[in-house]
Amino acid sequence: MNAPVAVIKSRSIEQQLSSLISVSEIFGPTIQGEGSLIGTQTVFVRTGGCDYRCSWCDTGYAVLPEHQDDWQKLSADAVMAEIETLTNQQPMWVTLSGGNPAMQNLEALIKSGQDKGYQFSMETQGSIVQPWFSLLDQLTLSPKPPSSGMSFKQKGLDRCLEACSHQDEDHVEVSLKFVVADENDLVWAKSIADQYPEIPHYVQPCNTQAKIENNDNPEVNDQQKQLLWLIEAAQSLNWHTVRVLPQLHTWLWGNKSGV
Amino acid sequence: MNAPVAVIKSRSIEQQLSSLISVSEIFGPTIQGEGSLIGTQTVFVRTGGCDYRCSWCDTGYAVLPEHQDDWQKLSADAVMAEIETLTNQQPMWVTLSGGNPAMQNLEALIKSGQDKGYQFSMETQGSIVQPWFSLLDQLTLSPKPPSSGMSFKQKGLDRCLEACSHQDEDHVEVSLKFVVADENDLVWAKSIADQYPEIPHYVQPCNTQAKIENNDNPEVNDQQKQLLWLIEAAQSLNWHTVRVLPQLHTWLWGNKSGV
Repeated sequence: MNAPVAVIKSRSIEQQLSSLISVSEIFGPTIQGEGSLIGTQTVFVRTGGCDYRCSWCDTGYAVLPEHQDDWQKLSADAVMAEIETLTNQQPMWVTLSGGNPAMQNLEALIKSGQDKGYQFSMETQGSIVQPWFSLLDQLTLSPKPPSSGMSFKQKGLDRCLEACSHQDEDHVEVSLKFVVADENDLVWAKSIADQYPEIPHYVQPCNTQAKIENNDNPEVNDQQKQLLWLIEAAQSLNWHTVRVLPQLHTWLWGNKSGV
Repeated sequence: MNAPVAVIKSRSIEQQLSSLISVSEIFGPTIQGEGSLIGTQTVFVRTGGCDYRCSWCDTGYAVLPEHQDDWQKLSADAVMAEIETLTNQQPMWVTLSGGNPAMQNLEALIKSGQDKGYQFSMETQGSIVQPWFSLLDQLTLSPKPPSSGMSFKQKGLDRCLEACSHQDEDHVEVSLKFVVADENDLVWAKSIADQYPEIPHYVQPCNTQAKIENNDNPEVNDQQKQLLWLIEAAQSLNWHTVRVLPQLHTWLWGNKSGV
């Protein structure tokens, strides 16, 4: 008679484990440094683990398995408690980043936070879809360009977009954001964005691998050079609908505090 | 019998003159460097003339009467022709700035541009209201803080907001934007924004008059220092709804290309 009970207990522990979130770091409040919510005050929850290995990844500590001992397995309640501590229980934006946060089950965290007045934004490359995407207030899909060394799967992106489609008014604000390291990346980004003309789209320089031409003015630093190059390159392609933004956090604090 | 004709002719010339736009400069495409459309590609039409004299104004050449010989009186058609030349007739955002563009009659320009697919954004301090505000796609109202030396008239701001109120779906996207030179400005900005919680609000450092504390790191330049200070100051006030942004154009090109 004991065996079935043991099985049930085991399942329960398994379920509990699978609902834990792998967390690399929780920090803030600070500002969102890039994309559609640039300048917005937010707390960041950076999850640990990623299905991609981008050549220029600047958050290896939240991606590579050799760092997984540094990641904590936390319940949604524990993550929410930390967010409330950091924000003195005053609701604001929470940004879910990684790694790839779509590898986690973040449904309970989002629901719990929203019940308390927090809003949730997430950034993911679009390789993994989750039904709870529809709960988000904002989703940035950032397909990785050729320079990343990753291959782009459009079906994945389309499934992520479908998961955000609502019939009701509480829709997810979706945007596309492309890291651009060179001309080839930019042409590729435009070819993707052109297929989704209704979705706001953003490009930003790749700050960890400057492949751009040198600027004649030695006083202009790399980030300025990259942004100036990107503005001109977008215009050369007659790509007038794209918004061109820097990574403010990299400018202000260096790569470590990036999203 | 000739007198009435002369009067009619005279009125016609007067009407024609009053419909001319005082233009300081038309330039672009470039990116909008600040506020809610930051990063958006746009052409700028900077009008000449202003009813304010802000202490830290960085566009005196478009404000002060001694520069008015440099301003051209152009018809809406002439301005639109220049915009089309600069954009190779490819519709994009047009940003109306100044000086105070609300001193001009921009109705014909906006209608003509929108007929051709262009979208119109405008920035004004809120001291002058015009019925054609309702035609705009986006309006940034930027009440001037105490450090400007100007006195704030809330009735003016309210009238501008009323002018943007639509019953139909083609509404004007309105935002509030505050230049902040010091703590006093920030407290004042929050007191204004708190009265309009539904309107997205932005703060940006005042780049022409650094009143902030010195940063210990000599490698951090003034703009970084100012932005870091502003982020921390907003958090100290528990003002979590405000978006904190730099002036990208000042960072990239210096003051001359500002809006």
